[in-house]
Amino acid sequence: METATLKEIDATVNSWLHEARGLVYQWLQTDLQVEQKTSRLDLVTNVDKGVEQLLRAKINNLMPAAKVIGEENDHGQVKSMEGAVWFIDPIDGTMNFVKQHDDFAIMVALYIDNQPILGWIMDVTKNNIYHGGPQLGVWCNDQEMPAPDDITLNDGLIELSASRLLAGEMHFEEIAKMSSGVRIIGSAGISFIKVLEGKAVGYASKMKPWDFAAAKILLETNKILFTTIDGNEIDMLLSSTVLSATASAHTQIVQLQRP
Amino acid sequence: METATLKEIDATVNSWLHEARGLVYQWLQTDLQVEQKTSRLDLVTNVDKGVEQLLRAKINNLMPAAKVIGEENDHGQVKSMEGAVWFIDPIDGTMNFVKQHDDFAIMVALYIDNQPILGWIMDVTKNNIYHGGPQLGVWCNDQEMPAPDDITLNDGLIELSASRLLAGEMHFEEIAKMSSGVRIIGSAGISFIKVLEGKAVGYASKMKPWDFAAAKILLETNKILFTTIDGNEIDMLLSSTVLSATASAHTQIVQLQRP
Repeated sequence: METATLKEIDATVNSWLHEARGLVYQWLQTDLQVEQKTSRLDLVTNVDKGVEQLLRAKINNLMPAAKVIGEENDHGQVKSMEGAVWFIDPIDGTMNFVKQHDDFAIMVALYIDNQPILGWIMDVTKNNIYHGGPQLGVWCNDQEMPAPDDITLNDGLIELSASRLLAGEMHFEEIAKMSSGVRIIGSAGISFIKVLEGKAVGYASKMKPWDFAAAKILLETNKILFTTIDGNEIDMLLSSTVLSATASAHTQIVQLQRP
Repeated sequence: METATLKEIDATVNSWLHEARGLVYQWLQTDLQVEQKTSRLDLVTNVDKGVEQLLRAKINNLMPAAKVIGEENDHGQVKSMEGAVWFIDPIDGTMNFVKQHDDFAIMVALYIDNQPILGWIMDVTKNNIYHGGPQLGVWCNDQEMPAPDDITLNDGLIELSASRLLAGEMHFEEIAKMSSGVRIIGSAGISFIKVLEGKAVGYASKMKPWDFAAAKILLETNKILFTTIDGNEIDMLLSSTVLSATASAHTQIVQLQRP
């Protein structure tokens, strides 16, 4: 795609995210409705649904033929990555959103024929949008971001999901103990931002496509490896235990998974 | 102490913290020296030492007869809580400070004859000072803070220290599993702020007196319970596994410690 067109799409989605943020705070103050999905730890709110609805409408308007995969609607209906496919995570870190009104993200991604085109992660509280892709580079708002240094697991902080750590799966305990410290934020988007900023050497968690689609584009653009935790390529239509890490930390963590 | 005097001390220490913050960022940009203390996970920097030196000098000037307990100097020399005793944690969350330049705090506390007088926790990145005490109430900068709601462990997020969770001690795993989610920040000060803001129902960690002295004043003023994890009174001159939690979460966590 032409760079000028990409820049236009980038700017357009940035403006959608700012609009969505306004609605998030409006709904938070007036009318937050929380429901359980699969368990007491899996929540959804009217804000999740409202933001997804807003972004779906905008996408349909911009690219009527595109497919859309969103957390709160229609998943499973998109069967292939052919053509333009958008991913929406309307509120990533819903538990944080409900309990803290802090540390949550809105994420959007665009792939065309399974190729990464553009990704957006908005830290809603801080009002920062991390955006870009292979053609445009990675930006935090209007500042271009350098690729993080290649730091080893031992010398860096690692972001992990609590559920796998507490379940003792995938050597998460060993990963934590090898690192300089484990951190648990409770939002994939905010955790990926830590890796993108070089504040953590990696992040590992079991995730659905809308949890990692935007981050995969941004992190790979800035030389962070992005695979399943055993080092394989990620299928954009399936859940995976995803590992995003510096080259050195990636090698160390993948090695721990080998029998 | 008269309220006017307390307000004066409060304002004075706030100005010290702003001065210290300026130095922190100056040193970060020009000259950060990192050393190991007891292990690769226990770091100290020239900034920790410099901030403590600055605050000690200010305290000595303001109250020459007061005792000072600080993380980087002279600990073990203060043997009683008689008279005025100041606590300084110059950089709380040194690992975060070194690896992230984010999520670290400066903490100061004043006790007189073992009574809580005033406490200060500065979130350095966000430039927020949480301050006050039983006589003045609790403030974030110039906004008075209400006491957090009494939420149960099941309905709230819990902040825990990674080391005890990974060591499987003090039922930290069960605490995490009972909660709506465990979070690990890597700074006592920033974790205590989450409790103070009602974003988490509690925080538990093994701590030294300078790690908890300020928070104990602020949290108790706003009706958060603050004891050892088995529900006993804290000795201000000793290390403890400290539990700060809402009344409901406190009861639940203390109960888990009983054989």
